[in-house]
Amino acid sequence: MKDTIYGVHAVRVMLERHPARVRSVLLAERRDNVRLRSIEELAQRRHLPVERVDTAALRQRLGDVVHQGVAADIVPLTPWSEDELLAALGDTLAPLLLALDGVQDPHNLGACLRTADACGALAVIVPRDRAAQLTPAARKVAVGAAETTPVAVVTNLTRTLRLLKDAGMWVVGADAAAEKPAHAADLTGPVVLVLGAEGAGLRHLTQQNCDYLVRLPQLGAVESLNVSVAAGMLLYEAVRQRGKA
Amino acid sequence: MKDTIYGVHAVRVMLERHPARVRSVLLAERRDNVRLRSIEELAQRRHLPVERVDTAALRQRLGDVVHQGVAADIVPLTPWSEDELLAALGDTLAPLLLALDGVQDPHNLGACLRTADACGALAVIVPRDRAAQLTPAARKVAVGAAETTPVAVVTNLTRTLRLLKDAGMWVVGADAAAEKPAHAADLTGPVVLVLGAEGAGLRHLTQQNCDYLVRLPQLGAVESLNVSVAAGMLLYEAVRQRGKA
Repeated sequence: MKDTIYGVHAVRVMLERHPARVRSVLLAERRDNVRLRSIEELAQRRHLPVERVDTAALRQRLGDVVHQGVAADIVPLTPWSEDELLAALGDTLAPLLLALDGVQDPHNLGACLRTADACGALAVIVPRDRAAQLTPAARKVAVGAAETTPVAVVTNLTRTLRLLKDAGMWVVGADAAAEKPAHAADLTGPVVLVLGAEGAGLRHLTQQNCDYLVRLPQLGAVESLNVSVAAGMLLYEAVRQRGKA
Repeated sequence: MKDTIYGVHAVRVMLERHPARVRSVLLAERRDNVRLRSIEELAQRRHLPVERVDTAALRQRLGDVVHQGVAADIVPLTPWSEDELLAALGDTLAPLLLALDGVQDPHNLGACLRTADACGALAVIVPRDRAAQLTPAARKVAVGAAETTPVAVVTNLTRTLRLLKDAGMWVVGADAAAEKPAHAADLTGPVVLVLGAEGAGLRHLTQQNCDYLVRLPQLGAVESLNVSVAAGMLLYEAVRQRGKA
């Protein structure tokens, strides 16, 4: 199984952070610039094959996307199990996780994944049943984030949240009725941000497993935020507090 | 011309804030609860007609949506001109505006409108040409926000930004290359937040008219945030600073 990513930034990040998953780098023949040369050098330092291809061939392979003259064949990131998620916590100082409780639309999962990636989240947790999975549609909306930020698929979200708490993480849920605004919660430590489906919100059992419930801006006529926008606000707040914005 | 909104929250907000635009309220016959009774009382106090309709008739009219037993026929909100936008500034203490520079996808405009509404923005500014307009698709994604938060359509965004500056507003643009993170900019005063299209970012001329450029989290493999998520983060930051979250 293989997958192709494209764009200077995406390929560079993959070569820097996950070189073992890169099979080969494809560079457009006609283009030659500083950014592409630095990609080529990076690949050569990792002893990875670099192939010069025709721009037309690149377009034929990738479709009409902004590839910037570079693509890479990579080993796709497979979803994490609960065990893999728990094992990964140890490798990260103050891990940031996003959990989606009952989000059914693959586009929303893809959008959340893209934002989680931009905010340096370790993974996005989704339940196996009655929830959006990492379909081709979700991957497309995630524009490459699905290759760097893993989706952890769990059988029972409530149990996973309890295990994460046992592992020292704080569980913070977004709830329109919460008293505390998001910025009043300390999000600098190891934290799981939990979002429910639009309208329905968090399930009762999920709410009960949250250490805090926080609210997001709700000053207008519409009763709920889009779930990926709500995820963006909460993740932004965590990044702001961590001083990494 | 008329339009129909639905849902307890949306109808209540319209009755409270814009009663002159409500033509009639429709209540499902079979449903009777505290929230619907309070809607009925609110309408009666405003001397507005209340019609009891069959739940099936409501569904037939609205389609398969979560109407919660209530809808209202309203006079639709028409787009603002530049003059109307400038005139509205005087009515608001520290107005918050969102301007979209070259956003072409109506879904993104709708999503931005929904978020701008939730964050209490006065209006969303879009250029007349080469930019998404308030199409039915945009209205649908905005789930009712198009009826409370106006879209201001302007001929020349650069000129409008200059006029807004002359009127005392600060113009803050989002730019991936900016040194200052969003939270380092003071967004508590009268402020226009400006976002460019994904990938392309702000046009050069738009950038030149910004008082500050600020950056949003960009820690991952994907080069840009979705524009509605970026708008959500910036608007969230403004609301947070204003202490209204």
